[in-house]
Amino acid sequence: MISIDTIRDAHDRIRPHIHRTAVLTNQTINDRAGAELFFKCENFQKIGAFKARGGLNAVLQVAQNKEGTALTTHSSGNHAQAVAFAARQVGLPAYIVMPRTAPQVKKEAVLGYGAEVIECEPTLDAREAGVREVIQRTGAVLVHPFDDDRVIAGQATAAKELIEDYGQEQPFDVMVAPVGGGGLLSGTALTTHYLSPTTRVVAGEPEGAADAVLSFRSGQVEKAPYIKTIADGLMTTLSERTLSIIRAHVSDILTVSDDEIIAAMRLVWERMKIIIEPSCAVPLAAVLKHPDQFAGQKVGIILTGGNVDLGKLPF
Amino acid sequence: MISIDTIRDAHDRIRPHIHRTAVLTNQTINDRAGAELFFKCENFQKIGAFKARGGLNAVLQVAQNKEGTALTTHSSGNHAQAVAFAARQVGLPAYIVMPRTAPQVKKEAVLGYGAEVIECEPTLDAREAGVREVIQRTGAVLVHPFDDDRVIAGQATAAKELIEDYGQEQPFDVMVAPVGGGGLLSGTALTTHYLSPTTRVVAGEPEGAADAVLSFRSGQVEKAPYIKTIADGLMTTLSERTLSIIRAHVSDILTVSDDEIIAAMRLVWERMKIIIEPSCAVPLAAVLKHPDQFAGQKVGIILTGGNVDLGKLPF
Repeated sequence: MISIDTIRDAHDRIRPHIHRTAVLTNQTINDRAGAELFFKCENFQKIGAFKARGGLNAVLQVAQNKEGTALTTHSSGNHAQAVAFAARQVGLPAYIVMPRTAPQVKKEAVLGYGAEVIECEPTLDAREAGVREVIQRTGAVLVHPFDDDRVIAGQATAAKELIEDYGQEQPFDVMVAPVGGGGLLSGTALTTHYLSPTTRVVAGEPEGAADAVLSFRSGQVEKAPYIKTIADGLMTTLSERTLSIIRAHVSDILTVSDDEIIAAMRLVWERMKIIIEPSCAVPLAAVLKHPDQFAGQKVGIILTGGNVDLGKLPF
Repeated sequence: MISIDTIRDAHDRIRPHIHRTAVLTNQTINDRAGAELFFKCENFQKIGAFKARGGLNAVLQVAQNKEGTALTTHSSGNHAQAVAFAARQVGLPAYIVMPRTAPQVKKEAVLGYGAEVIECEPTLDAREAGVREVIQRTGAVLVHPFDDDRVIAGQATAAKELIEDYGQEQPFDVMVAPVGGGGLLSGTALTTHYLSPTTRVVAGEPEGAADAVLSFRSGQVEKAPYIKTIADGLMTTLSERTLSIIRAHVSDILTVSDDEIIAAMRLVWERMKIIIEPSCAVPLAAVLKHPDQFAGQKVGIILTGGNVDLGKLPF
């Protein structure tokens, strides 16, 4: 069980290593949504995404408790950079298993943090086998991208800052985050439950990776009917751990199409002048798609990251 | 003569209508530059550019002093939006003369602020004739984009905020702004002269519109040898007014190529996750091109705007 003290400890632990990211508002987007939106800009976070929080909270504890002398994970995305970055902060080596199909720019970012990249075939089996081999060879400690209380407690600190900075005098009516494996959503839901109990928590999920909405309804970890979405950070399936937190503390999961994601992404680029990745646009897409559910409300939105390949934009 | 009181009055006048924009820093770009850079994010300003400041300061005074019952200007860029936006704030009609070749998105932005767009041929003569015709027909008051003390005093408030927020305990060594017609540069130089007299002011200018550097050296208003640059906001020539302020209070003007501008723009997009237009990248390009002149220094940079056509990116 992740208590509010666990989340506070996580925040104290990672605070020296992270940015307290800006919260932005935009009148045009408020007018479009018919609501008052507060965007927590984790695209400005270290490594360009909130994942730095969870990675740091886990890695700092591994180092403090001397649980191991190296770190490993498998990821093609922001979590790979998060573990590489966190490992460098504590001076431990990191071995990151990445599918050989991952963009070169992401491999270079991981290498840039001084980690070793181990390439594998782009399947979950190959990725897990790669990590097992690394652990056997180096004794590295695995930092799972979401199925880990320490990672969830780290991700929970983004909503904590948003509530502390903008949700004190007048609480948010609703807090919206995207859902992939559920680490950020679980953390956001727990923080909101503890610090702003009148605020409901809603998730946005791509139609093309709609496992969480099925799991949320059935109570079992379900697979998505199909996986095809531009939101490449949200393709993962929930774990038992994240599903149970989400079932307890999330009000609803709203799905959006890739066209809706791209339109929301473009709106943020054009009007807010900030760069967000497709996965990051999912909550706003959900708010714009369901104006009735947010009309006149004060809405907190976690903008999760800004790592896009500028050579491959959808517009 | 624009005094510090004039600039303070301008700031008090426009404050209710503008954002006090964020100042961002970035470790990677600092490492690349070998200096400590503070970016004043006027791309987050109303209308997406600092021009809102000067436009407002002029238009608010026109309305207060009952100098006229309508506003006009000619511009293909951000100043057009600034005057349209400011006119709407005071409830006066605005007539904006725009070359028929101006991007449709910019015309629509001006129309979106409720102004009337008058199209003309894309020459300076046609633009000035268009404005004369508007004035004759409507009695509108012209708000020049830079050759106007009220506009300069408005633009001066961006550097004022930057110095107030980040240049008090330890003054900036240098303040860097781009130069086109010289309105922003003049205002920045005056503010810095008054509020942070130990700070030198340096300008960045595109090689493909290099009039200011010639005028700065000769003391006469010179024309650029040729006009060909991606920095479409910086193609204008100085006026006597802006030249005399710049000669008095600017240390140097550094020119940069379009390739250097594009590289700096891309660096900001990729590392800072914010959207800046090509003209806006010119100061950073100048800092990166001349590391010897900025090594180890505390540098303020005015990021001027973020209005780009996402369908026509240079990368």
